[in-house]
Amino acid sequence: MDLSDRIETGMQAAIRYATACGCPQKLSDAFRYAVFPGGARIRPRLCLAVALACGDRDPKVATAAATAIELLHCASLVHDDLPCFDNSATRRGKPSVHVEFGEEIAVLVGDGLIVSAFETVARETQHAPELTAPLISTIANAVGSPYGLVAGQAWESEPEINITAYHRAKTASLFTGAVSTGALSSNGNPLQWYALADALGAAYQAADDLYDAMDDNGSMGKPAGQDQANGKPNLVAELGLEGAMKQLHSLVLQAADSVPDCRGSDMLRAMIHKEAKRLMPKKLAASAA
Amino acid sequence: MDLSDRIETGMQAAIRYATACGCPQKLSDAFRYAVFPGGARIRPRLCLAVALACGDRDPKVATAAATAIELLHCASLVHDDLPCFDNSATRRGKPSVHVEFGEEIAVLVGDGLIVSAFETVARETQHAPELTAPLISTIANAVGSPYGLVAGQAWESEPEINITAYHRAKTASLFTGAVSTGALSSNGNPLQWYALADALGAAYQAADDLYDAMDDNGSMGKPAGQDQANGKPNLVAELGLEGAMKQLHSLVLQAADSVPDCRGSDMLRAMIHKEAKRLMPKKLAASAA
Repeated sequence: MDLSDRIETGMQAAIRYATACGCPQKLSDAFRYAVFPGGARIRPRLCLAVALACGDRDPKVATAAATAIELLHCASLVHDDLPCFDNSATRRGKPSVHVEFGEEIAVLVGDGLIVSAFETVARETQHAPELTAPLISTIANAVGSPYGLVAGQAWESEPEINITAYHRAKTASLFTGAVSTGALSSNGNPLQWYALADALGAAYQAADDLYDAMDDNGSMGKPAGQDQANGKPNLVAELGLEGAMKQLHSLVLQAADSVPDCRGSDMLRAMIHKEAKRLMPKKLAASAA
Repeated sequence: MDLSDRIETGMQAAIRYATACGCPQKLSDAFRYAVFPGGARIRPRLCLAVALACGDRDPKVATAAATAIELLHCASLVHDDLPCFDNSATRRGKPSVHVEFGEEIAVLVGDGLIVSAFETVARETQHAPELTAPLISTIANAVGSPYGLVAGQAWESEPEINITAYHRAKTASLFTGAVSTGALSSNGNPLQWYALADALGAAYQAADDLYDAMDDNGSMGKPAGQDQANGKPNLVAELGLEGAMKQLHSLVLQAADSVPDCRGSDMLRAMIHKEAKRLMPKKLAASAA
């Protein structure tokens, strides 16, 4: 099975459990709507790529970790789109969950996806109990407080934002979670992979800021220019368009350089360069070609 | 240490982790606000009482399970109070979290408490890895979908509510989670405890409905009559005040009868009768005295 098949199979299984017989219909529909069709699934792909690079010792566990990471990413998108945060009417080119199903179902879908992520890891690691707690702790760190997604989003409610802590918690943390759980599930050492996660997280944040600043509605499926409208920190406002582009290039090189020596390192570097092309806003990529 | 001390120590530890150095200030304040001072802590008390009744084989694990259950209960209160659900301005006699800190922080505190619950179990079961996955799965079942709190709340968005499924998911599920994890953490058999959980969950729901219908603001700290205002199902509307009272009495007796034979069964029955007195709305208790 290739990476995409493993991820989609994992996501289907998780949602099948969450929407099993007895689930209220709207909630069930909204769960599926929030995770299918997915975006680029970059975080779970990264998780599995690291697991493969480390030997893919236990594919079932790695797939569960990748699935949990993606469920949590989807949860964060559903909650981030809520009126009290980004108030985003669209996501991935369709109405956001609260627009389609109402705010109450959007809150519950986010909550339910968080629970489902941990449930998935518990269910799929019963044959490898020594991995359950380390995986759960690592994932909780990546999405909770004080260093994960929850804290990252909460920085936006502070009178003064610590930009480094904000970006690290809001974006880099889930990349760190992805590479760490990928390594853990294959008996690798997560510490060797932190530099890669940091660089990728920062690159992704830079790309996101570029998209946001560029009035480019097409590729990421959310209305552009929202950061500025919402008074949120943005790399382009800080460094200018060209400066932000340079930063993105440099972060991608840094990420590729950070891949530790292992049997899958060439595959991983190739994946990073391919992903970098996808990340680059199309208008800029065309003008740089 | 008595039950209350174990629970408060567990809650303090969990919140200390979630608000460690680097946590945005408002989020940190809101975490504490949402869980301290607590309510009656009935669910974690039940969890620990069952663990004790089963021999309290691993107090650290039992306390972690009790803590996780209470963190999740607090999370559900914070989210249930949001404007899109009950729109409740007060909770436990003070402004609700979204009123005090804003809606965005309230959503994040709920999310963060859910994560913290699973993190707590993972952290405190590292010495007993065979328990991590069963505890996480049991807790996820109690709070997620299709049978836990998330599904229970989602029933309120359906055009027709399945009342049995609604009450079971919204109230009984967390009691089931509490007794099951209490039993699991002491090597007990959760199946022997389901009848107790069901009866207690139903008793608690009946008491809640009585409070809601009685315009009694004092004891539960939330504005009364909300179910009716929100068009939510309520036992008093169904059976009348006297019928609902009879139902509550019968459920308490049923709960006490459901305690399986074990060395702590007398202690547990006494606890149930004591709790029943606390559950009874004061005006009704006075008129029944």
